[in-house]
Amino acid sequence: MCAEEVISLSYIRASRDFASGNASPQRLLEEIRTRIDAREGEVRAFVTLALEKAASEAEASARRWREGKPLSPVDGMAIGVKDIIETSDMPTGQGSPMWTGFETRRDAASVQALREAGAIILGKTTTTEFASTEQYSETTNPHDRERTPGGSSSGSAAAVGAGFVPVALGSQVVGSTLRPASYCGAIGYKPSFGALNRSGTYDHLSQSCVGLIGAALEDVWAVARAIADRVGGDPGQPVLSGPAALPGPAAPQRLAVLETDGWRKASPGALEAFETELRALTARGVEIVRRGDDPRLEKLEQAIDGALDLTWKIMSWEFRWPLACYVRNNPDGVSAAMQGRLADAEKMSPADYEAALARREDVRGIFAEAASAVDGFVALAATGAAPKGLDYTGTPHMNVPASLLGAPAVSLPVLSDENLPLGLQLIGGRGRDADLMAIAAWRLAG
Amino acid sequence: MCAEEVISLSYIRASRDFASGNASPQRLLEEIRTRIDAREGEVRAFVTLALEKAASEAEASARRWREGKPLSPVDGMAIGVKDIIETSDMPTGQGSPMWTGFETRRDAASVQALREAGAIILGKTTTTEFASTEQYSETTNPHDRERTPGGSSSGSAAAVGAGFVPVALGSQVVGSTLRPASYCGAIGYKPSFGALNRSGTYDHLSQSCVGLIGAALEDVWAVARAIADRVGGDPGQPVLSGPAALPGPAAPQRLAVLETDGWRKASPGALEAFETELRALTARGVEIVRRGDDPRLEKLEQAIDGALDLTWKIMSWEFRWPLACYVRNNPDGVSAAMQGRLADAEKMSPADYEAALARREDVRGIFAEAASAVDGFVALAATGAAPKGLDYTGTPHMNVPASLLGAPAVSLPVLSDENLPLGLQLIGGRGRDADLMAIAAWRLAG
Repeated sequence: MCAEEVISLSYIRASRDFASGNASPQRLLEEIRTRIDAREGEVRAFVTLALEKAASEAEASARRWREGKPLSPVDGMAIGVKDIIETSDMPTGQGSPMWTGFETRRDAASVQALREAGAIILGKTTTTEFASTEQYSETTNPHDRERTPGGSSSGSAAAVGAGFVPVALGSQVVGSTLRPASYCGAIGYKPSFGALNRSGTYDHLSQSCVGLIGAALEDVWAVARAIADRVGGDPGQPVLSGPAALPGPAAPQRLAVLETDGWRKASPGALEAFETELRALTARGVEIVRRGDDPRLEKLEQAIDGALDLTWKIMSWEFRWPLACYVRNNPDGVSAAMQGRLADAEKMSPADYEAALARREDVRGIFAEAASAVDGFVALAATGAAPKGLDYTGTPHMNVPASLLGAPAVSLPVLSDENLPLGLQLIGGRGRDADLMAIAAWRLAG
Repeated sequence: MCAEEVISLSYIRASRDFASGNASPQRLLEEIRTRIDAREGEVRAFVTLALEKAASEAEASARRWREGKPLSPVDGMAIGVKDIIETSDMPTGQGSPMWTGFETRRDAASVQALREAGAIILGKTTTTEFASTEQYSETTNPHDRERTPGGSSSGSAAAVGAGFVPVALGSQVVGSTLRPASYCGAIGYKPSFGALNRSGTYDHLSQSCVGLIGAALEDVWAVARAIADRVGGDPGQPVLSGPAALPGPAAPQRLAVLETDGWRKASPGALEAFETELRALTARGVEIVRRGDDPRLEKLEQAIDGALDLTWKIMSWEFRWPLACYVRNNPDGVSAAMQGRLADAEKMSPADYEAALARREDVRGIFAEAASAVDGFVALAATGAAPKGLDYTGTPHMNVPASLLGAPAVSLPVLSDENLPLGLQLIGGRGRDADLMAIAAWRLAG
């Protein structure tokens, strides 16, 4: 197996050859350097790269593996980190001209955990301004340079899609992990709300999560576990549960189609790919249920109609700080889009915010009821292939329900639209991430 | 009324004379400067002072009041800010040699709200390392320079106790607001968990709160409202409820004594002062119930026995990050006490943490049941007068229950021990901060 194949397949699988020396973190890193040298000028996934430090870390990691003493299954894995997540050795710019080059002098909890696990923090990846809508970076989709990689975890998805890193960290409050993963042909994973510790991240929103983007499901799971085992989840929240290694494939008996209000926006090609997928799942013995088949599903679909509006209302209030501070200190430093968000927030009262939170709780209750009737939900991960152009990162309608619901979701790069990648989204019950992974593993093995 | 009396009494009451010009934020600030010049060399409450900026802000505020257009009831109020709370114009040092002078380039949510409300951020106040136990500052108790002001909101309590500011911001995860308030003869207020937005603070712990320390209850309430109305509570949490102005005094019918496991550590003088207080409350018509009178109270006392151990377990895990990062990057930059905390955390698993969280939820349920039987709880706010010496900030046993329970608590400077201030603690039902304030107002009026 050559290094190129290995990175596309799985670091975890490649690591089986690390003890013998037939493969090593160093050689994988060399391959990564070659790929970055060849394509980063076009993809522009990184804000900052730490290649020299990475080389010495890979050397140390290779030695640990040879001695049979790796620090964890991800020892030596090169990881990209979204530029809202703090790193003590690289600036954290939040995709904002105001914050470019800012040194926070500490690692976020996720980064600290990964360093303890022996992983290599290879670089910071591009994001939209404050991980929201405005795109200042010029990151391109590795499958078509004329198209967006999606956002807000733009660079993380592009870096994985281009084969630069096996896994990159992102975040998702609306659709910022699964959508770019779908566009870039990568696996995206948004865990249950709170399951991975977000501390030390410029991300204070009440439904946001650390998100993972990777090329192989076992790598994604291994990184999630490396974080959860060392720094847990958000303070006060249950920690990601599940086994140390990726759960084995488990066939679902019954999956519910979740249309979401992205359904009406989906491209013909995406809808066709999805129906083909449903037929294939049926052929493998899965019972597919739809909104018309069960009143609990119909109620859920109606409850999540408008999920984006509800999420935006909650987020707008929660963005009042820090935006009001930024605008006061530097009116020209914040985009018109974010100034608009602030204006929305300033029209809201605490009571408006609490009403939106109460509505979110109601919808979560409706979801829990529907989730008890099935093994999981199946949906598109995006409304279609990545849109053309670099200014607009695409619509998050397919992703916002899982974010609002605090439910775990994965996007698997198994569909296509316009001959470009498109993700199949699987959504699980809240806190049941390991069950979701088992279904995802089953789908990928099929 | 001279300025000195005004600051000791109430900014809100003084502001009634601002329109006429008989009093003004400027003149109050001048008085503050005089006091600081006279005593700050001894009290050492501040890490940083912004007196010049304050002067121009007071001038602008005075103009607004004269024009009948104050931005809020706290327009022009000088406020001290605990040095874990970020300020865009002053460094945030976290009481840690590692972080001294660090500029975060933004205001915390609470600070942003207060600036919008026209308040003057006068300076940053001292705290223990990471608002925990190690005391690097040399802040003294304004009532006895040989004694601790308490911690971790040391400078905030000392600044209020010395009459330097009407209100200062602190925080409380164990006893960091009410204990120093008790020692320094100030009012301390820890709101219901989540009721005031902590974002932009080096404080990520799952039961921590913005705390307020002030000389007058109406000032404390006005500052709390100024924050809650503009930036709400912690993301996803209910916002502080209650009226714009301090609720009017309301006599409680029934108060329960909460001994806490601080009872066994209380000084004879403190216990005597407390019993005298209970007799006075009875004389005013309040029914005082004790643990022997109601099985729900007895159950609560037993449940909170060991509240400090449970809190420390939760906090230790939650401090694993960032301590592990700090120690890795700078082993000598972290105190032995905090290195010990990290060592404790490293012995814990996510399952241990979740078990502690579950226990906390159980105790909160027991509290809710007991709270439904009374109008509030009454306790000592500290085990006695401030201890002698500046190294040890005193024991938080009397304060940790309210912190663990997420319940609102106030300390009123109405008792004494060793001829020094001692606080009477009132604790209310979670989310019922306004009811608690009404009882506190009644007690102070009595």
